[in-house]
Amino acid sequence: VSAESAGQHKDASPDENRLGGYETIIVTTKNNITKIMFNRPDKKNAINHKMYREIIKALEEAGKDDSTIAVITGNGDYYSSGNDLSNFTGVKPTEMKKMAEDGAVLLKEFVSHFIDFPKPLIAVVNGPAVGICVTLLGLCDIVYASDRATFHCPFSQLGQSPEGCSSYLFPKIMGLAKANEVLLFNKKLTAADACVQGLVTEVFPDRTFQKEVWARLEAYASLPKNSLTLSKQLIRSIEKEKLHAVSSKECEVLKERWLSDECINAVVTFFQKKSKL
Amino acid sequence: VSAESAGQHKDASPDENRLGGYETIIVTTKNNITKIMFNRPDKKNAINHKMYREIIKALEEAGKDDSTIAVITGNGDYYSSGNDLSNFTGVKPTEMKKMAEDGAVLLKEFVSHFIDFPKPLIAVVNGPAVGICVTLLGLCDIVYASDRATFHCPFSQLGQSPEGCSSYLFPKIMGLAKANEVLLFNKKLTAADACVQGLVTEVFPDRTFQKEVWARLEAYASLPKNSLTLSKQLIRSIEKEKLHAVSSKECEVLKERWLSDECINAVVTFFQKKSKL
Amino acid sequence: VSAESAGQHKDASPDENRLGGYETIIVTTKNNITKIMFNRPDKKNAINHKMYREIIKALEEAGKDDSTIAVITGNGDYYSSGNDLSNFTGVKPTEMKKMAEDGAVLLKEFVSHFIDFPKPLIAVVNGPAVGICVTLLGLCDIVYASDRATFHCPFSQLGQSPEGCSSYLFPKIMGLAKANEVLLFNKKLTAADACVQGLVTEVFPDRTFQKEVWARLEAYASLPKNSLTLSKQLIRSIEKEKLHAVSSKECEVLKERWLSDECINAVVTFFQKKSKL
Repeated sequence: VSAESAGQHKDASPDENRLGGYETIIVTTKNNITKIMFNRPDKKNAINHKMYREIIKALEEAGKDDSTIAVITGNGDYYSSGNDLSNFTGVKPTEMKKMAEDGAVLLKEFVSHFIDFPKPLIAVVNGPAVGICVTLLGLCDIVYASDRATFHCPFSQLGQSPEGCSSYLFPKIMGLAKANEVLLFNKKLTAADACVQGLVTEVFPDRTFQKEVWARLEAYASLPKNSLTLSKQLIRSIEKEKLHAVSSKECEVLKERWLSDECINAVVTFFQKKSKL
Repeated sequence: VSAESAGQHKDASPDENRLGGYETIIVTTKNNITKIMFNRPDKKNAINHKMYREIIKALEEAGKDDSTIAVITGNGDYYSSGNDLSNFTGVKPTEMKKMAEDGAVLLKEFVSHFIDFPKPLIAVVNGPAVGICVTLLGLCDIVYASDRATFHCPFSQLGQSPEGCSSYLFPKIMGLAKANEVLLFNKKLTAADACVQGLVTEVFPDRTFQKEVWARLEAYASLPKNSLTLSKQLIRSIEKEKLHAVSSKECEVLKERWLSDECINAVVTFFQKKSKL
Repeated sequence: VSAESAGQHKDASPDENRLGGYETIIVTTKNNITKIMFNRPDKKNAINHKMYREIIKALEEAGKDDSTIAVITGNGDYYSSGNDLSNFTGVKPTEMKKMAEDGAVLLKEFVSHFIDFPKPLIAVVNGPAVGICVTLLGLCDIVYASDRATFHCPFSQLGQSPEGCSSYLFPKIMGLAKANEVLLFNKKLTAADACVQGLVTEVFPDRTFQKEVWARLEAYASLPKNSLTLSKQLIRSIEKEKLHAVSSKECEVLKERWLSDECINAVVTFFQKKSKL
């Protein structure tokens, strides 16, 4: 059994408790850790509407359960390719406006659950991350990445705009001059880049990634639970109000973007290229 | 034609449109890029009162024109040696107070145009930068620098104090412990230092600087324009009010500084040393 | 005489003025520099209640005296091992609540004096730093460290929570993903780590540390005094109100923590381990 397959826990081990009722994610608890694993590996873990709602539900449950920390990771080669662009397809022209409005409401609620999550939340980035799954890393408390991971936010390329509080958090983390390459000009960061820029806590060789990271997480999960919870909430409380305001504004801008010619044309081009492959 | 002279565009090429009415700067538009070039190379591009007003006017025009991005750079060996200290000379004792008040009003308006600039604004730092031309980099969206560039803010040495929102932005970008060496203790940063500290996005060898940077800028200028504009405005909007408040406060402090013995003596010493060269 | 012993000034040199009335610290003034040196070397400069109050008094005096800058450093091998845990011992069960309340009031006042200190304040970190003496570095204007220094905040390990404005400043300085390893998960930083993360301005080899640092400090202290004071106050003013609010909140959380089973058990375990040595 390799470190990777051992770490990915596709089948729950005897002492692991798998929560039912999810189709697009796998949620398990073990050793005071709740793990939420994106589970659409054949779609590079792209997030469709059902998956947004299931992640929201899983975060609500993880926030209330007995675990000390929660972990987000991806099953397979990708961490997540971000928003599933098929969310935009098959929409009738008369329903475009409603699609954009509903999408903005869902995105706002989704991001809010990351802002308000009450315990330490740790991202285990097992492979490439795109869009919303990159920006949300700024709301995670610790980000461990495999050296296979990359970080790409092709917002302007797709006629869109930043979300997940990245318009505020990425300049705060990286400085404006570095953040804008990512947020405005589609620069894809390597894991090493992202670590130097402060988005990632530490990078591990892919071969030992799961083993090294889970050993640390188990040590973290054995620390005094209330101290960790209250400290995390203290740190977050200082900018919680601001983060919600930023996310609201981002969703407003994005709602308009989704109805723009620039965005519609970019999405059409994306699927045309894909169908030619 | 070397890369450098090609990049500096002293003479407008056939498909380049040079805007008239400027004496201290050269403003051209080409390939969806408006370029504002400091053009007092024999004065190391020091900014005198006329040049402050011309840059303000050029930013207003560039904000409204059809270009996708705007670029600021310097002609010759220097990016800019900052505020022209001759702005302080030849002032009668009875007019000192008015000089300081007018200077503070002009500086406030100048910085405001950088805070409010509505499109991506990119600094192409071709050589040494001093004072206000360093601090304003914190308000630019991307900063590319030649490895010949240096970054120097001799505020306390001149009996003065930080401006250009650097009292807020430099600690935010670099952390207080690094920012204060620059803002309080006159440390001159190399291009490599400034890049590690996050003030500069990327450093290029001087030999290929213009060629590499303009290739990138042209790629950026071909991205969806509205997406870029709205994303830049989204990022800036989060702290626009704060930036204006900071600049106001900085100008108030500086107005007093300009009338202080420490500043007057330092400026007199500066010109005495210069006249001995 | 080695550089180190020369730098530590255990005996005031002829032109050095030592202020009386202190038992736990040594306060001297020389060359426009006021130096506050922690002086409980046999206790690794741990801060007991008396020392908190003496540092408060020394900062008040240094803020008003004629010196241009103030310096904080430690005598002996340690910078400071932080809050003296014996502050928690010997308290009767009926007096626990009062102990926690008084401790929170004292801590709030202590941190306030760092927030409000009116001149450049420079930390000369001569050796390991722990807890409150690490977090306060975020409120210092410059932090020079020996390569023997380490930086450790075992808050959750002791069932406690961040103070000294670190819940706000460490994420601001390092980014959240790096700060949380320090604030939540007890990661001890080397001097080199702390410098990369922006908490430390520069690291020096221990052998030449005192000599190199004091040469710089003397140069700084000869700069225009009012310019330095006003520039420091300008930089601090932008977030002074926020820093006081953060510190208040941190002290509220910590007051509850000090009465928690997690904290009491951790402190008991600490002294049990110590007594076995």
